[in-house]
Amino acid sequence: MTTTNRQFLLQARPVGLCSPGDLQLAESPVPELQDGQGLARVKFLSIDPTMRVWMMDADSYLPKIPLGNVMRCFGLAEVIESRHSEFRKGDKIVGLVGMQEYAVISAAESRGFQKIPAVPFISDSAFLGTLGITGLTAYFGMTDIAKPEKGETLVVSAAAGATGSIAGQIGKIHGCRVVGIAGADEKCKWLTDELGFDAAINYKHSDWKEKLAAATPKGVDINFENVGGEIMHAVLDRMNRHGRVALCGLISCYAKEDPALENFSTILVKRLRVQGFIILDYAARFTEAATQLGKWKVFGKIKDRETILEGIEKAPEAINMLFTGANTGKLIVKLA
Amino acid sequence: MTTTNRQFLLQARPVGLCSPGDLQLAESPVPELQDGQGLARVKFLSIDPTMRVWMMDADSYLPKIPLGNVMRCFGLAEVIESRHSEFRKGDKIVGLVGMQEYAVISAAESRGFQKIPAVPFISDSAFLGTLGITGLTAYFGMTDIAKPEKGETLVVSAAAGATGSIAGQIGKIHGCRVVGIAGADEKCKWLTDELGFDAAINYKHSDWKEKLAAATPKGVDINFENVGGEIMHAVLDRMNRHGRVALCGLISCYAKEDPALENFSTILVKRLRVQGFIILDYAARFTEAATQLGKWKVFGKIKDRETILEGIEKAPEAINMLFTGANTGKLIVKLA
Repeated sequence: MTTTNRQFLLQARPVGLCSPGDLQLAESPVPELQDGQGLARVKFLSIDPTMRVWMMDADSYLPKIPLGNVMRCFGLAEVIESRHSEFRKGDKIVGLVGMQEYAVISAAESRGFQKIPAVPFISDSAFLGTLGITGLTAYFGMTDIAKPEKGETLVVSAAAGATGSIAGQIGKIHGCRVVGIAGADEKCKWLTDELGFDAAINYKHSDWKEKLAAATPKGVDINFENVGGEIMHAVLDRMNRHGRVALCGLISCYAKEDPALENFSTILVKRLRVQGFIILDYAARFTEAATQLGKWKVFGKIKDRETILEGIEKAPEAINMLFTGANTGKLIVKLA
Repeated sequence: MTTTNRQFLLQARPVGLCSPGDLQLAESPVPELQDGQGLARVKFLSIDPTMRVWMMDADSYLPKIPLGNVMRCFGLAEVIESRHSEFRKGDKIVGLVGMQEYAVISAAESRGFQKIPAVPFISDSAFLGTLGITGLTAYFGMTDIAKPEKGETLVVSAAAGATGSIAGQIGKIHGCRVVGIAGADEKCKWLTDELGFDAAINYKHSDWKEKLAAATPKGVDINFENVGGEIMHAVLDRMNRHGRVALCGLISCYAKEDPALENFSTILVKRLRVQGFIILDYAARFTEAATQLGKWKVFGKIKDRETILEGIEKAPEAINMLFTGANTGKLIVKLA
């Protein structure tokens, strides 16, 4: 069987948003399988802010992507052929499939892939979102880093995003007052009317800092931070002594070389704990977390939304949508 | 009894280093004691970097000092007259005595004052240094925030200062490789030859970052940070994943309005825990810590040094010495 694999290759490192030449679609034949390999057809690509970091000319928590290589990307794929002992034809798997139509799974790389179970009331794509990388990030950031207590005030930035929306709802489950920050009135309405946030603030309104203050009359105990820069600065100004910052992302800074935090001394003065975390460190506990998230989802404790684009061609512009705020909830590219 | 009390009043808020007019010596009569008050003669003033923060036009972990008020200052005093139920004539006390010759201790304020015991081989002034505010800061920063493990690498900035020198030695007691950063070759020599640091680096040498890298071949697990700015930036660049920053001070930033940390994203990428702390939060455990520090000192596990200036007139220039790096160990002004 020879089939053509369409792949997005990283040809240039973006400055600011991704430009058309940065990721280029190329075609190559799907390679013949060797013993120990499997072939999977990619069904969904997970579009995540961290991809912009991977494109930079610097190693981060993962090595930078060499120019000319397939763009690194989480996704969901179905095994269509297997000479791999762990995977059978028909298995659905999630992992770093790459921004391409077909992924070869080799023994050496298979640790990154996990089979997903068939669960009633749970769609496959949820294993990229609420039960996947973004939901798991929210789960561990809240339970292991932020450790919310009943009655505390939690502020989530990028609150209408895939991770922020789940983090805020986990805060509600723990009895927190939850305030979201987002970039559109519609998103704010979704957060308060559908997800049960106590307040949501559109940072594009000029008086948003006053509104943040009004929405956090007892100050802020926990900041689940996805954005950085001016938004994080404003939230730190509202933090209570001994507050915690679960540092999940710095999306406002990903297009800069050396992001700075202006009011860094607040961490000292208010005795804050600021803790960065990366979901890959929690791999051993993914099943525990996905099970809990799945229960919450099925029982309506957690609601979610997906923004789905159709066709691999849309993947580069999908990355930019994360930075222009065009999506709500989990952003996914569905392949034909 | 009417006696004259000489006091330094905060008359202007310094920009950069303290200027001669910022703190002005004034005379006023020592007030008549009321019931519930005691009068103490100040013997030593503790000169600490945090004083520069208190002088700013902004509340920090303590309210800003109103202009015209006595400069806030830790110190050691001897009770010379008492109508206060907790203190007797002859008691030696430490606390926020103020930058003055006589301090009135009233019931409302007395919680800030603690009696010091007479301990063999321990001088009174040690209760401002190794067994006092700076030693306690090192103790809690290391044991409660940094939590060193045997074999880890600890980097201490401002390592020849009163707090840094103790923090580094506590690191040695816990079996760490300890590297100090200081601003003079003599200070570095003191750290390695007398205090047992494994290496010490003079940041005024142009190749200091290369030397820091060479001195931390396994990276850095703990940063006991007193300085901030460029020095902290360089140490963060050497941090290992899941490292801890005990954020004790930001002396390089105290003369600026809004200190920034340039490579803030490192905290996320390396999953660091950065935790600010202020010694006042640990008041309930001061006795536990001072007892331990006293034992270490008596048994030679911890060595210290004092830089002592004579006469209250020297107090303002003493503050500046902290920022020009003119002192080694604890900086104290001894009153006549």
